[in-house]
Amino acid sequence: MSRFFSERYKDLSPYTPGEQPFMKKYVKLNTNESPFPPSPLTVGYAAKAAESLNLYCDPDQRLLRRALSEKYGVGEKNVICGNGSDEILDLCVNAYCGKDKPAVFADVTYGFYRVFAQRSGVPYRTVPLDAELHIDPRDYADCGGTVIIANPNAPTGAALYPEQIEGIIRSNPDNVVIVDEAYVDFGAESCVPLTKLYGNLIVTGTFSKSRSLAGGRLGYGIGAEELIADLDALRCSINPYNVNAMTQAAGIGCLKDDGYYAENCKRIVRTRAVMTDGLRRLGFRVADSLGNFVFAAHKTVPGRTVYEKLKENGVLVRYFGTDRISEYNRITVGSDGQTEALIGALERIL
Amino acid sequence: MSRFFSERYKDLSPYTPGEQPFMKKYVKLNTNESPFPPSPLTVGYAAKAAESLNLYCDPDQRLLRRALSEKYGVGEKNVICGNGSDEILDLCVNAYCGKDKPAVFADVTYGFYRVFAQRSGVPYRTVPLDAELHIDPRDYADCGGTVIIANPNAPTGAALYPEQIEGIIRSNPDNVVIVDEAYVDFGAESCVPLTKLYGNLIVTGTFSKSRSLAGGRLGYGIGAEELIADLDALRCSINPYNVNAMTQAAGIGCLKDDGYYAENCKRIVRTRAVMTDGLRRLGFRVADSLGNFVFAAHKTVPGRTVYEKLKENGVLVRYFGTDRISEYNRITVGSDGQTEALIGALERIL
Repeated sequence: MSRFFSERYKDLSPYTPGEQPFMKKYVKLNTNESPFPPSPLTVGYAAKAAESLNLYCDPDQRLLRRALSEKYGVGEKNVICGNGSDEILDLCVNAYCGKDKPAVFADVTYGFYRVFAQRSGVPYRTVPLDAELHIDPRDYADCGGTVIIANPNAPTGAALYPEQIEGIIRSNPDNVVIVDEAYVDFGAESCVPLTKLYGNLIVTGTFSKSRSLAGGRLGYGIGAEELIADLDALRCSINPYNVNAMTQAAGIGCLKDDGYYAENCKRIVRTRAVMTDGLRRLGFRVADSLGNFVFAAHKTVPGRTVYEKLKENGVLVRYFGTDRISEYNRITVGSDGQTEALIGALERIL
Repeated sequence: MSRFFSERYKDLSPYTPGEQPFMKKYVKLNTNESPFPPSPLTVGYAAKAAESLNLYCDPDQRLLRRALSEKYGVGEKNVICGNGSDEILDLCVNAYCGKDKPAVFADVTYGFYRVFAQRSGVPYRTVPLDAELHIDPRDYADCGGTVIIANPNAPTGAALYPEQIEGIIRSNPDNVVIVDEAYVDFGAESCVPLTKLYGNLIVTGTFSKSRSLAGGRLGYGIGAEELIADLDALRCSINPYNVNAMTQAAGIGCLKDDGYYAENCKRIVRTRAVMTDGLRRLGFRVADSLGNFVFAAHKTVPGRTVYEKLKENGVLVRYFGTDRISEYNRITVGSDGQTEALIGALERIL
């Protein structure tokens, strides 16, 4: 850090994304990417948009918001799009957290919530998962802060029912509740319908996982018009052209090709069952997951060893190495072939 | 705004980008876009990247940073890329401004500097341009804050020489100086070479203007390794995948096709001379501009009237309407045909 760097950030510890191997080829199961490419129609939309990049993208994201509003059965003013859902989550932390309004989230969850809070200079409080690594909704009742819940949770893959989240929303009438549904399309139930009933709920989603657009960077937030207006005011104070023209077009293409992506999700769910069985057979404890990943700890081999041996054998998984989850690895559910490679490598290692 | 919105933002007034007409066709000279599409090679690179968007983009932006470092003759660790140069400028304001370190910029300049400061909750101080609407470098000597200078300045088009900016850098050893070179490729001289001599200088640039990539969102910052490391720490605390895969690829394509874009800049410079002459002939005061726009005030017709009448006649220009520049319009230098349409419309109106 330079001597000029603001003291506000002296304790900043940036989020570490999963390794992106540069030259070497791996079976890459470490960042919850889809093994399926975007559909030809999606690619075609993006490529067409590339031809007129000399013009700015629509700062109001009108066609994309309209497509999303139709998909999710909400109004166009109930939707905002971001450069990944990370951007939307960052806007939420900025908009709804402050000195007397900490961000409140699980001790084991998406690591970026803590980083967003630190970077924005707002306090945060973590709520321990229970012994089974599940969120207990009672812990969030009238909690005095802005609630952020990943549902399904990452990296555990466990999900709450909308009825349980509704309880949290109702018991926090003066707090905003943010439900991060990055992984909802792999078997959990969405809370988007609740955004019509509650003025303190924002649901975020991403095109990175179920819609094969990780490299395109597209996320969204859905909520009451007033909340979306807050986020839009902040967005337009940082980067009104935040979602580039190719990604806006690709997003519209994805929504037009919904069937293709829904079928891919079904394939992931089938492969997840095969992978979970295979891991259990090899001595892993694997909780049932509703994400496109599983969270697995071996009964005897340390988590770090599993990670390192797999990497030596050409398979990248995600090892976090923090207190409560130091024995676990998060393993993306990829294609059937990738799953076979994973299980084969583990059979050699263990 | 909702009742939940943080009080920090109660005075926020988001930046208003130039209108992006949605349905109606205009001769669009209001947002300093290039009239020339990206080159086929650039489009091809972006389209190819779209095919594998299921994988995340490189969060370290390695190939793009390398291409930029080669273009600008600096090291790879002296470069950072952003989702537009707006993002880099926002990171700079966050990193280098604070309670005792205001942002210092001209009273008439890119409107986003003020918005960035407001949004980040840091103080700012504006320095009036002189009577000719020029920056006087003496006003920035030992100024006690983080200096931001657009060079050429927008919306005036006037530029300082690197020697003048060097004086500002030398007289501010304890302040960071940020030179925003969004428009440098249309005739001004770059300060990038000075980044090798001074550890308190960051030069930012964009692919939106001279490289026909406004809709792709790509900007960069160049500076000493320590400064770039500061910005990178912040970037990775907000959005490590900030530049999507298609845009990273398009950027590399632009740099490979440098000759095409350089030729386009020459065409803009020629058209700018024609347009400046035409406007003067019609009774406009037009300062010599080194940007891809001119800043023009008519001797008798109010600035707002010029803007409104042009819009009625199908030509969009940028009218800011603020105190010192309420008689001016900023008019993008487009193609020869667009320039003829502008002059033709003005001949009918005046």
